[in-house]
Amino acid sequence: MKKKKKKIVVIGGGTGSFMVLSGLKKHDLDLIAIVAVTDDGGSTGRLRDEFGFLPVGDMRQCIAVLSNSQGNDFLDKLLLYRFVKGERGLKGHSLGNLILIALEDIAGSEVKGLELASQIFKLKGEVIPVSLKLVRLVVHYKSGKKIKGEHKIEINKLKKGDRIVKLETTPIAKINSRAKEAILTADLIILGPGDLFDSTIANLIIKGVPQAIKKSKAKIIYIVNLMTLCSQTEGFKVSDHVKTLEQYLGRKVDYVLVNKTSIPQKIIKTYQRKESEFPVKNDLGEDKRVIRGDFLDKRKIKKAPGDVLKRSLIRHNPEKLAKKIITLLNR
Amino acid sequence: MKKKKKKIVVIGGGTGSFMVLSGLKKHDLDLIAIVAVTDDGGSTGRLRDEFGFLPVGDMRQCIAVLSNSQGNDFLDKLLLYRFVKGERGLKGHSLGNLILIALEDIAGSEVKGLELASQIFKLKGEVIPVSLKLVRLVVHYKSGKKIKGEHKIEINKLKKGDRIVKLETTPIAKINSRAKEAILTADLIILGPGDLFDSTIANLIIKGVPQAIKKSKAKIIYIVNLMTLCSQTEGFKVSDHVKTLEQYLGRKVDYVLVNKTSIPQKIIKTYQRKESEFPVKNDLGEDKRVIRGDFLDKRKIKKAPGDVLKRSLIRHNPEKLAKKIITLLNR
Repeated sequence: MKKKKKKIVVIGGGTGSFMVLSGLKKHDLDLIAIVAVTDDGGSTGRLRDEFGFLPVGDMRQCIAVLSNSQGNDFLDKLLLYRFVKGERGLKGHSLGNLILIALEDIAGSEVKGLELASQIFKLKGEVIPVSLKLVRLVVHYKSGKKIKGEHKIEINKLKKGDRIVKLETTPIAKINSRAKEAILTADLIILGPGDLFDSTIANLIIKGVPQAIKKSKAKIIYIVNLMTLCSQTEGFKVSDHVKTLEQYLGRKVDYVLVNKTSIPQKIIKTYQRKESEFPVKNDLGEDKRVIRGDFLDKRKIKKAPGDVLKRSLIRHNPEKLAKKIITLLNR
Repeated sequence: MKKKKKKIVVIGGGTGSFMVLSGLKKHDLDLIAIVAVTDDGGSTGRLRDEFGFLPVGDMRQCIAVLSNSQGNDFLDKLLLYRFVKGERGLKGHSLGNLILIALEDIAGSEVKGLELASQIFKLKGEVIPVSLKLVRLVVHYKSGKKIKGEHKIEINKLKKGDRIVKLETTPIAKINSRAKEAILTADLIILGPGDLFDSTIANLIIKGVPQAIKKSKAKIIYIVNLMTLCSQTEGFKVSDHVKTLEQYLGRKVDYVLVNKTSIPQKIIKTYQRKESEFPVKNDLGEDKRVIRGDFLDKRKIKKAPGDVLKRSLIRHNPEKLAKKIITLLNR
């Protein structure tokens, strides 16, 4: 009898999930990406406003990385292609977003559109929106300020002493039943890396998600970001990341993956100068759950033409992370 | 030994080629669509201006009809999808056009982009631009007027007594070598139906096309339009169509397919009222090349949502035409 593949559920969306999945897809696994539905900026935001569908950007990235691109059909490049010309409104749009919108419109719903995309792009896995409800993020700050909308939250640099005290969606949204099923049957759940609040926790504030994770027998790995984020995790050490995450998760994570390789001084200085962002300090030396390793990507990061998003200068290395994840899966 | 498939080359572009190919694709044939490169209106025109690539609209239609859509993956629908929303410039664009533009940009040239499209959409045939040069149509009228640009020619309703005396491209363009090879090795070449000047003859004015057709051993079928076109073939009977075509072709066609089924009076009146257009009268009764048949499509024609093009109310029936073409091929 054929051995059943191990099921890994990656919860997040965007670049973090893209990176984790790109490493894991090279292994024989049952991969599921659960993505947040609260993106409302850029190409995705424009399409969301105009078509009323769930935001497609995070789904597109996960579909692109899971597409069975055999090296010569450029399916992944097609999905990630961004228009840099087109004065009359095409500029800035991601073709993959437009394809997803069209498929959803043709099929009559987001769920059916994603099924079509899965067929067309021969996905090595599944991409599931965490909820089927179109919602926006609302952030409450310690200062009393409140901001609605992910793209506005992203550009709100925290003032000294201020911090996020509560994240919620408006309206309240319920977990998508397929996401629930995936979580309940998972062998491993991966959270992070990525924007702690608007990518990772944005999934955990969906009604039913923490409950499903608590019920699941899956181990939970949390991959801590390399750098702080001035709009969300200003001054955060590893313990702050873990504590905040667990507060929304309602349970402890099983493993905390922390990069131990030094980040080049030149890059640190750029982050510091441009964004007042710093490498995340590991203050959980005693915690047995912490797994320190060389997870840094030393390859130069290429900026995609027309990429309007802020791109980080350093990244986790997908292969190094995947290798560690597999050993934890088989522990 | 496996018998070599018969090669049919359909020269035109747009709705006429789409219809002919959709019937022929159900037979075991080597199908090649050679398409005009002079479209400059609508979504195609906008993209042509902004990206500087060959016009993609006609290629998209041929790719969609030749795509190996197995009934459930909606590949053809995806290519033909048109955005009806998107105030900021997406509106009116065909997704297939955007996909082709992206593939051409990713691959670095139109030819390589088309090769990628052919792989991705698993074409049952080949789509070849008649020339690789970006050109515009120029029409000289009997009245002395001259109009440049296909989309302007299309909307210029001929005044009484006026007619087109010359069609040319600016600059002069040479045949694409792949188009030449296809013509030279064809068993059958099909011209029409479609706009006589800006779709069919638009191919014949490319340097080297008539020469290749003359050299080819292929029989030539000309499928005459059902209705006159007020901007191009005002008052034309079958003989006028054939004579004009042969003037640009430089040789005689072998067969002239003419529909003999009556067009419903209600439809005739609509054409007459809206466009002063009439059923094309067959005045070639004695000509042995003329093959009259029931080629009319009795199915109701659906207007695609967001379709900004003028759509005819009646069409040829693809299956009926294909059946007749096959018998002529085997004659």
